[in-house]
Amino acid sequence: MQAVLRNVTAVVGGILAEGTACVRIAGTKVVELSRVPLLPQLGETIIDGTGKLAIPGLVNAHTHLPMVLLRGLADELPFDAWWQGRIRPIEQALGPEEIYWGSLLGLAEMIRSGTTAFADMYFEVDSIGRAVEEAGLRAVLSYGIVASQLDAHGADELRQAEAVISRWNKAGEGKIQAAVSPHTIDTCSEAVWREAIELAEEYGTILHTHLAETKEEAERCRATRGMSPVAYLHGLGAFAVPMLAAHCVHVDEEDIALLAEDDVTVAHCPKSNAKLGAGIAPVASMLEAGVKVALGTDGAASNNRLDLIEEMRMAALLQKGTSGDASVLPAREVLEMATRVGAEALRTGQGMLAVGGEADIVLVDLEQVNTLPVHDALSSLVYCALGSNVTDVMVAGRFIMRDRELLTIDEERVKHEAKRLGEQYRN
Amino acid sequence: MQAVLRNVTAVVGGILAEGTACVRIAGTKVVELSRVPLLPQLGETIIDGTGKLAIPGLVNAHTHLPMVLLRGLADELPFDAWWQGRIRPIEQALGPEEIYWGSLLGLAEMIRSGTTAFADMYFEVDSIGRAVEEAGLRAVLSYGIVASQLDAHGADELRQAEAVISRWNKAGEGKIQAAVSPHTIDTCSEAVWREAIELAEEYGTILHTHLAETKEEAERCRATRGMSPVAYLHGLGAFAVPMLAAHCVHVDEEDIALLAEDDVTVAHCPKSNAKLGAGIAPVASMLEAGVKVALGTDGAASNNRLDLIEEMRMAALLQKGTSGDASVLPAREVLEMATRVGAEALRTGQGMLAVGGEADIVLVDLEQVNTLPVHDALSSLVYCALGSNVTDVMVAGRFIMRDRELLTIDEERVKHEAKRLGEQYRN
Repeated sequence: MQAVLRNVTAVVGGILAEGTACVRIAGTKVVELSRVPLLPQLGETIIDGTGKLAIPGLVNAHTHLPMVLLRGLADELPFDAWWQGRIRPIEQALGPEEIYWGSLLGLAEMIRSGTTAFADMYFEVDSIGRAVEEAGLRAVLSYGIVASQLDAHGADELRQAEAVISRWNKAGEGKIQAAVSPHTIDTCSEAVWREAIELAEEYGTILHTHLAETKEEAERCRATRGMSPVAYLHGLGAFAVPMLAAHCVHVDEEDIALLAEDDVTVAHCPKSNAKLGAGIAPVASMLEAGVKVALGTDGAASNNRLDLIEEMRMAALLQKGTSGDASVLPAREVLEMATRVGAEALRTGQGMLAVGGEADIVLVDLEQVNTLPVHDALSSLVYCALGSNVTDVMVAGRFIMRDRELLTIDEERVKHEAKRLGEQYRN
Repeated sequence: MQAVLRNVTAVVGGILAEGTACVRIAGTKVVELSRVPLLPQLGETIIDGTGKLAIPGLVNAHTHLPMVLLRGLADELPFDAWWQGRIRPIEQALGPEEIYWGSLLGLAEMIRSGTTAFADMYFEVDSIGRAVEEAGLRAVLSYGIVASQLDAHGADELRQAEAVISRWNKAGEGKIQAAVSPHTIDTCSEAVWREAIELAEEYGTILHTHLAETKEEAERCRATRGMSPVAYLHGLGAFAVPMLAAHCVHVDEEDIALLAEDDVTVAHCPKSNAKLGAGIAPVASMLEAGVKVALGTDGAASNNRLDLIEEMRMAALLQKGTSGDASVLPAREVLEMATRVGAEALRTGQGMLAVGGEADIVLVDLEQVNTLPVHDALSSLVYCALGSNVTDVMVAGRFIMRDRELLTIDEERVKHEAKRLGEQYRN
């Protein structure tokens, strides 16, 4: 797209720029940022952003996209009863068509709440990838390896993970990448973990896993291995590869020091952790220790949304409420988590509006009754905005939502299919 | 209104009714509830609710309506620095016109997120009342008495509280009532409290106050009076009058027993308490002890929203996250807090859809990408819905929002005035 976006309030380099700004977009990139109005050149579209906030696209650092189909099916249950007891049996029966429609439903929800990139871990990844390619977002896709032994099943799981890399790494005009995702330290044996680490090294992908999510997981690890989950993975060499570790709720000071030292990015999922009763991750302590903390929704079966605006608000409020310190996790910092930190971990650009950077831009209408008056646009975004305030979403210089209309997804069809499929799991 | 609402999923008596329902409305009341389709009679309007959930109007049990004008002005500050340092000086300069427009802005936000009744405590109450009368909601209005002595100033504060009762109790076609609101145990002396209690007894109103909001308040009370804030008010006889006590964050087991015994309704304000770092109220323990717990937003200067759907979600997630128990505060219970419990404390009807009850009904469109598929409509409401899913709001049989259009408030004018006024406080 060749375009000039005018009259916006903009978050530039993580900071709210004073006054209004102009953004010139050429092809897939931002090529000029200016406080002085830019005159459109021949062939450039003018986009007026009066009353709107322009932010870099939000990055959902941990989700299981098709699980939107299962949201609300098994609420008010603790982790093990929820996953092993209810969700796992249903999800194992999901076929490629269901995964495809579920993915589109989740993508529509994410676009409508300003997300432009995400890290996913699931199965039937070809169906997820097909939906992502159509929708036009950035994604890091992966197959969730579940193998308690490196036997025939274990080898097959690893083959599936490798097939995802072959098929999806650098696909979707470069917007899609692959990761290697051993599911947890409980569901994958040490031998499987070692193979997974090698696979990631071989293909130069990141590792993506669930880590120290529940108290039970941490206790089991200490009981059987005499060390914490974080120390265990550190010992295995899993942090020698760029690591995206979801949750990290049950970590102590030593764990936090290791996460910082080994440059692990934590994908903090406050709503899912709270809803499952897993707890509240010590994010303030992690940030203070220099750990990189990104933000994720987790799957919608435990969230039950895929909305990073809501997730930013929850992250900030939970840390303030539990620490008793209102200054912890201010709006500016939580937006950094949801943009720059996530983008760096996912390798999906800079996660900020910058000249030469990717044109992944979200416009948020702050002139609504839930956001006015706007004393501080970052505060309005984090503490007031809803998904419904998001009007436009651009990825790589291409609008995928314009004036609240989805341009790459047939929303009515997706809603129809979601209703139809949803009825099956209730019976 | 004479109408038949058809094809809705309905929450009847706090329970999600099976299948679809029909609701007949005559005048201000619900006169028939049926699973069998009702045939409209001559003169009755048909309202089709296909795909929508019908719930009783939400009740915001504690707010300071016009503070929407100040949201985002003083974030990330602890309670005392926030209130005494920043908010109080600005709000004391607010005049009647500002209070009026601020009230309409807050009312618009509440209607758009399904609230039909609320308890308020502020000043310039005539301007608030004027806005509420126009907007058509139910409200319990009060003047916040701040008087450290029963001197001339103290007497004047009490006179203002009485004037609000004279002017507003049973106003607005009976939809408006008054309460007596001594502000806190810190900002009102014992003598002032005694007068306030008498005033409430004399006029038969409820008392509405802030109680045990911060650790500092609880510690000051123990240091100066040798007892907890709850024990102190109990000793004063304040609980002999129907009491609506906002917050109750810093309460111990004995306090909780007293609150239950004395039939106090707690207005739990999870977002405001978290955002100010005041803490997280022990709601699960209070409910277990039989305390009546309603739900409030507090003012938008500390929330920064007036949205009970969001507040329900936050209440549930905070209790699950801090207790480590996913079964605590299920969707059903949190909806009860936001409807029946609040309505009973505010005396604004039954807070449930029932034959002979008030026709305060909210329709929520659950067939959107943030809510589909709907496996359990209560779960979709509490864990997925946004204000933007609310399509219609009826109070006393009269639509005040229809198909997302506000019918009693000139929304464009209100947004214009909010922007204009907001600019003043930033300078």
